[in-house]
Amino acid sequence: MGQPAALRCISCGKEYDPSQIDYTCPTCGPRRGTLEVLYDYDRLKKQLSRTTFAESGLESMWRYLPLLPVVQPEFIQPLRVGWTPAYRFPVLAERLGLKELFVKDDGQNPTASYKDRASSIVVIKAQEREREVVTCASTGNAASSLAGFSASTSLRTMIFVPKRAPEAKVAQLLIYGAQVFLVDGSYDDAYDLAAQAADAFGWYNRSAAVNPYLVEGKKTGALELAEQTNWNPPDAVFVGVGDGSVISGLCKGFDELARLGLIDKVPRVYGVQAEGSSPIEAAFRAYDGASDVPIHDIAAYTLADSICVGKPRDIVKAVTYVHANGGGFVTVSDEEILTALRDLAQQTGVFAEPAGAAALAGLRKAVEKHNMSFDSAAIVVSGNGLKDIASARKAVRAQAVSIRPLLEEVKRYL
Amino acid sequence: MGQPAALRCISCGKEYDPSQIDYTCPTCGPRRGTLEVLYDYDRLKKQLSRTTFAESGLESMWRYLPLLPVVQPEFIQPLRVGWTPAYRFPVLAERLGLKELFVKDDGQNPTASYKDRASSIVVIKAQEREREVVTCASTGNAASSLAGFSASTSLRTMIFVPKRAPEAKVAQLLIYGAQVFLVDGSYDDAYDLAAQAADAFGWYNRSAAVNPYLVEGKKTGALELAEQTNWNPPDAVFVGVGDGSVISGLCKGFDELARLGLIDKVPRVYGVQAEGSSPIEAAFRAYDGASDVPIHDIAAYTLADSICVGKPRDIVKAVTYVHANGGGFVTVSDEEILTALRDLAQQTGVFAEPAGAAALAGLRKAVEKHNMSFDSAAIVVSGNGLKDIASARKAVRAQAVSIRPLLEEVKRYL
Repeated sequence: MGQPAALRCISCGKEYDPSQIDYTCPTCGPRRGTLEVLYDYDRLKKQLSRTTFAESGLESMWRYLPLLPVVQPEFIQPLRVGWTPAYRFPVLAERLGLKELFVKDDGQNPTASYKDRASSIVVIKAQEREREVVTCASTGNAASSLAGFSASTSLRTMIFVPKRAPEAKVAQLLIYGAQVFLVDGSYDDAYDLAAQAADAFGWYNRSAAVNPYLVEGKKTGALELAEQTNWNPPDAVFVGVGDGSVISGLCKGFDELARLGLIDKVPRVYGVQAEGSSPIEAAFRAYDGASDVPIHDIAAYTLADSICVGKPRDIVKAVTYVHANGGGFVTVSDEEILTALRDLAQQTGVFAEPAGAAALAGLRKAVEKHNMSFDSAAIVVSGNGLKDIASARKAVRAQAVSIRPLLEEVKRYL
Repeated sequence: MGQPAALRCISCGKEYDPSQIDYTCPTCGPRRGTLEVLYDYDRLKKQLSRTTFAESGLESMWRYLPLLPVVQPEFIQPLRVGWTPAYRFPVLAERLGLKELFVKDDGQNPTASYKDRASSIVVIKAQEREREVVTCASTGNAASSLAGFSASTSLRTMIFVPKRAPEAKVAQLLIYGAQVFLVDGSYDDAYDLAAQAADAFGWYNRSAAVNPYLVEGKKTGALELAEQTNWNPPDAVFVGVGDGSVISGLCKGFDELARLGLIDKVPRVYGVQAEGSSPIEAAFRAYDGASDVPIHDIAAYTLADSICVGKPRDIVKAVTYVHANGGGFVTVSDEEILTALRDLAQQTGVFAEPAGAAALAGLRKAVEKHNMSFDSAAIVVSGNGLKDIASARKAVRAQAVSIRPLLEEVKRYL
């Protein structure tokens, strides 16, 4: 097991003993003081090879257990999390001027989003800490995955979502048995409230960024992309960005593989933000690599609810990691997201939620508008389109045709 | 490749050359004359062993290609179909008095239902036949899977669904680019209309039962359950039943494995029908194993839309196969289905659509009401709960609590 050797503050660099601290650096505070999980890489380098993971026989992200912060593996849930397909679609690749395009479909996780990778870890950490309640603020997916992964444990789940969360995500929460608070405010209001409640009632907090173990789950998408491409990952990886934790996880995953000598080339990781919700993209543009990451929160709006975040909690980590990685950020309009959603479904059969389709919209923008060029790229589809039917309906003009059960009526419409 | 050796009529037993016939026995007609796909089992028995499938390295149902009717494998789509998880849940097993319970979660297929197993085959057969259009009548899942698997091909898809199909399923169809006809009538009306249109316009018909290759895809769930239990499948397998094709597939899959010497014990397969939609259960009760399967169509109603079928098209095969298998049928109320849906989600984290939860309701009914007893059992969750949020909401009384973003408001509700 990759029992963490230390937790290190992303801003001041101070290291903490994992048994001494749950969330963030006391000196730098919850926003700038998010923690990185460090392992004994020298020991891991001796123990691991490219074949280690397949030899586990596990068809889930638990094949990477040696690189994950699990101390008591008996708390691993049965649900199959991760090891999602990385599809090759040659026709779509060619249209984008790529030799190869991979579509990593994380909508096929147990609760149908990338967030399952993080929640499955947090449910273990909560039990290792002998907590009885886990809590989370969420635009929807993080919460439903937390509720789903808690379901077969004795943990109770308290969820805070903004009142505009899509109906399907709220229904998922209720059916998994979570106590759901619909907060009359933004995701950011829900976030602050969850933190206060965790503090007041001793609940274990899975909200984005504040919990250092989330990024560990989220890095597994990178580990899988590397292994699924036979340790020759694509030149670029595109992913939608809200709080900045998923992209931080992808950067950390590729970086760790390089440190361990398992890949020779680190893909550039590109974050895609919606035009109305792009504070991390703005911070990245203003960041010089030396001084503090500049933080300017905004009132965000995009129909891609999963990445509608005006006060991104993992902004320091996301900007720092992507800068070190050599990647970047692009912004896309909601219309571009919907077009990508439709084209992805109609050209590949992968039905993404808007935040998942944003990855394709961003890749397109990079290639067509910003004249970037890659031999190969991957897009991470972070959630299933079934989670947000209303947006999907906006993506297609076609309507179902109502007819009586008569052949003449069919003929009339052909 | 398991190129089919012959197609045999389930009623008269006459055999046909697969290149000579597309759908049903001309003598017995479309209802009683559904065809069985036969292979050269002697040859297969020599070629196959228990390790053959894992050696393919394929983490999808294509690991069973030698047992599937695919002539041109170049038409296999990239989407990962099948090889869905078979979870063990010891606590739920114990509550049911079982030593072991498996939950086969087919909601994790590309379009989130068991039907992907059949559609992926039909899309190949349509291309092998050089057809340009595929069609299907469906309560929803078969259609969305056909549209999803057609998406990355040049096939066009024409879909007939009853107007009461859940919104998410219709949205899926449109986003995949299918032409959708909402038929003002029942599923049975939509079915007849699709058959007429296929006939009139030369479309390849994927509607249930009429196409002999559907059951071949559907049998892969049985093959997987056997392999996932190390060739020692559970005593009983429970599955929701609408048209009768999925249960026919499961029976055929286990039967073929036994014929090939790959399993020693054939599980008993139990079909679960909703009380308001149980014509196959009724036919099974009246069937004596010798005379014709008695067919009495009804006007069906159940909220489990995927198994709401009053005129089941694969009734002859389903009754004949289950009779030969030694299994049976049980009926459950809609309330029992909703209770099972809730309990499954809250005790395992698997969120099923009502027809998927019916399998658990049926297992419960068999054990608690009919005093059946098994050491081990499996339930097949045939579709993802995200497909039918409205029904899921009926399954839980709990509501989300609307609050202002203030800690006092949280306290008030605890």
